[in-house]
Amino acid sequence: MKNKKTILLFIALVNAFTSPLLAQKTKAKNEQVKFSLSSYKKYIDDSNDAHLQEFIQLVSIPTISSIPANKPDVAKAADWIVTKLKAIGITTAQKLPTAGNPVVYGSWDKAPGKPTVLIYAHYDVQPVKETEWDNPPFSPKVMDDKIFGRGTSDDKSGVMISIWAVEAMLKNDGKLPVNVKFLFEGEEEIGSPNFRNFLEKNKELLHTDFAVTADDAQYSETDPAITLSSRGAVQLEFSVKTANTDAHSGQFGGKTPNAVVAMSQIITSFFDKAGNVAVAGFYDKVLPITAQQKEIVKNITYDPAKDMKILGTTAEVGDTSFLPLERVWYRPTLEIIGMQGGYTAAEGHSNIVPGSAMARITSRLVNNQKGQEIIDLIVKHISKNTPAGATVTYKFKPGYASPMVTPSDTKAFTYVADALQNVYGKQPLKLGTGGTGGAMLSFKEVLGVYAYSLGFLLPDEHWHAANEYLRLSSIRKGQLAYCYYLQHVADEESKLKK
Amino acid sequence: MKNKKTILLFIALVNAFTSPLLAQKTKAKNEQVKFSLSSYKKYIDDSNDAHLQEFIQLVSIPTISSIPANKPDVAKAADWIVTKLKAIGITTAQKLPTAGNPVVYGSWDKAPGKPTVLIYAHYDVQPVKETEWDNPPFSPKVMDDKIFGRGTSDDKSGVMISIWAVEAMLKNDGKLPVNVKFLFEGEEEIGSPNFRNFLEKNKELLHTDFAVTADDAQYSETDPAITLSSRGAVQLEFSVKTANTDAHSGQFGGKTPNAVVAMSQIITSFFDKAGNVAVAGFYDKVLPITAQQKEIVKNITYDPAKDMKILGTTAEVGDTSFLPLERVWYRPTLEIIGMQGGYTAAEGHSNIVPGSAMARITSRLVNNQKGQEIIDLIVKHISKNTPAGATVTYKFKPGYASPMVTPSDTKAFTYVADALQNVYGKQPLKLGTGGTGGAMLSFKEVLGVYAYSLGFLLPDEHWHAANEYLRLSSIRKGQLAYCYYLQHVADEESKLKK
Repeated sequence: MKNKKTILLFIALVNAFTSPLLAQKTKAKNEQVKFSLSSYKKYIDDSNDAHLQEFIQLVSIPTISSIPANKPDVAKAADWIVTKLKAIGITTAQKLPTAGNPVVYGSWDKAPGKPTVLIYAHYDVQPVKETEWDNPPFSPKVMDDKIFGRGTSDDKSGVMISIWAVEAMLKNDGKLPVNVKFLFEGEEEIGSPNFRNFLEKNKELLHTDFAVTADDAQYSETDPAITLSSRGAVQLEFSVKTANTDAHSGQFGGKTPNAVVAMSQIITSFFDKAGNVAVAGFYDKVLPITAQQKEIVKNITYDPAKDMKILGTTAEVGDTSFLPLERVWYRPTLEIIGMQGGYTAAEGHSNIVPGSAMARITSRLVNNQKGQEIIDLIVKHISKNTPAGATVTYKFKPGYASPMVTPSDTKAFTYVADALQNVYGKQPLKLGTGGTGGAMLSFKEVLGVYAYSLGFLLPDEHWHAANEYLRLSSIRKGQLAYCYYLQHVADEESKLKK
Repeated sequence: MKNKKTILLFIALVNAFTSPLLAQKTKAKNEQVKFSLSSYKKYIDDSNDAHLQEFIQLVSIPTISSIPANKPDVAKAADWIVTKLKAIGITTAQKLPTAGNPVVYGSWDKAPGKPTVLIYAHYDVQPVKETEWDNPPFSPKVMDDKIFGRGTSDDKSGVMISIWAVEAMLKNDGKLPVNVKFLFEGEEEIGSPNFRNFLEKNKELLHTDFAVTADDAQYSETDPAITLSSRGAVQLEFSVKTANTDAHSGQFGGKTPNAVVAMSQIITSFFDKAGNVAVAGFYDKVLPITAQQKEIVKNITYDPAKDMKILGTTAEVGDTSFLPLERVWYRPTLEIIGMQGGYTAAEGHSNIVPGSAMARITSRLVNNQKGQEIIDLIVKHISKNTPAGATVTYKFKPGYASPMVTPSDTKAFTYVADALQNVYGKQPLKLGTGGTGGAMLSFKEVLGVYAYSLGFLLPDEHWHAANEYLRLSSIRKGQLAYCYYLQHVADEESKLKK
């Protein structure tokens, strides 16, 4: 999962009609710049090689949160980040316990009377299909101005870019213009099952005026973006069993239930002919797409051919009564993320009737859909559609991410937009995302602040897939944006006080 | 696949009504015994430990014919068998080449004027799912009067039991009562793709009066059986591709085709509601079940509950207008033997829309169904049922096994039946099988002889599955049956000459 990470790959161009408006705004905004980033720029550029070596160290630790065997690696990375925070002069830096992996917390609070900014990112990563990588996923490699490795983009870039920006300000000025709190989660890739509870328990400690998430992407190398809505997500694994063992297909074939066939029938039953989810009640709490959401989609020039070329798909599926971006941003899904049953080794051919099969589901949620309710509906559907001779068992995953919507008519939005404007020379696009922002919803509900996206991933950087990478140029851009943002918050808030 | 290996597991008891008849027959048959096996018994018992050590050597060689990397192991086992044949005094023993793995050929021809008996078995084995084995599959282990290991039952038992029986006769008598030809195949488990061609090329060399196959099973430890029909088999692997790569389910889910869903829809489309194969034309060349076949099934007391208990199944599936044994023995099937797509590692949860999925099919054939025709029909069906956005590629397997029927009104049948009668004290049951007898059909069509089943596997010995084993008691019974059979053929044929 990815917090509010924007869905940009399939968006081709900013709507040509909006360009003149943007140009006008750009001019107006540039006049607002009250300070220079040049002193930070020098430190950032001088530190580049050393920072890259640090980044390689962190990416080398396989912090796969969904695999229990990697728990020590997750803890090791948390310690590594704490050490780094202390080294740059963060006054309080420590691991804070959760029911699962620790949260790394860092606080610099020597700006009394100034606002506080909380920066969120996550240091855990997705699992890997090692054979599909050109280079080992946890032995990062720099090539063609990119760094390859699991988590380089999602989201160890978020952790390190925000730290390095604060480092640049502290080294240059000996202080920060605002108070800063770092919050780096270790369970984002498993749906943040303990994060909300953690926020509730540490509500006082985490009190803040503003929040940003570094676990998000820009639209392209030249076009900034801020995500204003995200889908929730819930996960489920289930197994179909038709026998205690595989059976000889000659000896038993013709009268013995086949677990792969039973599983295929269940999977097929999940969908209607239009490609919508056929689970009863699935759409009950889904609201109509709003006029504002329709407007957001309308402002994006969407080229299906260009988008499909990226993945190598040959068709778009789903209910054509919604636009493709509407389907991805504002409609829920049920995806089979994997399925296995019977003899599937790379070679050989075992003439069996498989006795068991397994499938994993991720369902993306919108509006008022609740994870537990959706799981219940899916389980009910499976029970009803399990063929004779098959029994189903479930592995439920704790926690789920809720869908959320973020407003753009706030000063908190404007501060982030201005920082992006300063670095990119243009105002950010407003987008939706089909990814999740569960942790971000908790920020609003528990801490009372919206977390706006200020992350520097790019959409073609193979998040969750093989050969994930980060553009080295994003590291510099990101640091400059964070420096500007922190100074800008201080300046603007100070003006408001007067 | 298993040549004519009988489908016995799910047959509970000999029909109680036939028992008095059998008892009468047993008495009459026992009077026919013209010679004693006692001298062979002593040699067989004295050699028991040494033979077990030999067996462990052969089973330890992983002769998996479906995995190219195991080709050297297959050749090594062939050499091992040649050495053994020479050691017991077989005059000609050698590997004979085929387009694939070699056939091991052995001939003892010092009984001029006497008939020739050809003994078939195979020394290749099925692949293994290693993690499911209690003991490593190629490190055989003796426990509870059983020997565990891949191929112990299917069919290295067939190779060694027939060799040891001939060894006992040669050691005891210095000669054999008939001429003997051994023919041990190395590609039975991949459907004997080169066997027919091999027989045609070596037709003169392999000329024989009688043939038996040691690749078959008895009904139970106390009840012998001979199989009179077998199904053919054909294999196909196909892959569904919806994209060049897996896609982030938040970023693309809702508009991007899912390969696992597409594959499930194709698999589901293979079957109608009754559980019959819905591939157009699939049953066109299937003949009605004959009166004799109905009679064979009627003579078996079939207890579904007892049968289902063995596999742990909870229902029987398929078209109920046929009896379960009719479905398995005399009706064709299409089984999905394995399917995989997306993220299915033991742990972890990768939120992707899978870009590809793979499935393997084995179709069991009857009557006039031809393998190539069935493959063509399946491919046509898949093309017609491939959903939008998916493309399908195929891996065709060379060769296929034909269905066959063997008569029971021949003297060749009687000689085998008498040998089983002598060892078990009762006449063998006549059965059908849902397994294949492709190689056996080639014997009839190329060499002009029916190969009758004289194998000592038992149906619960986990053929093709994990923890395959052979009962040690079957080794002794099998040798005695072979000794009796060879002597009996000599005696009876000599009588007919007079």
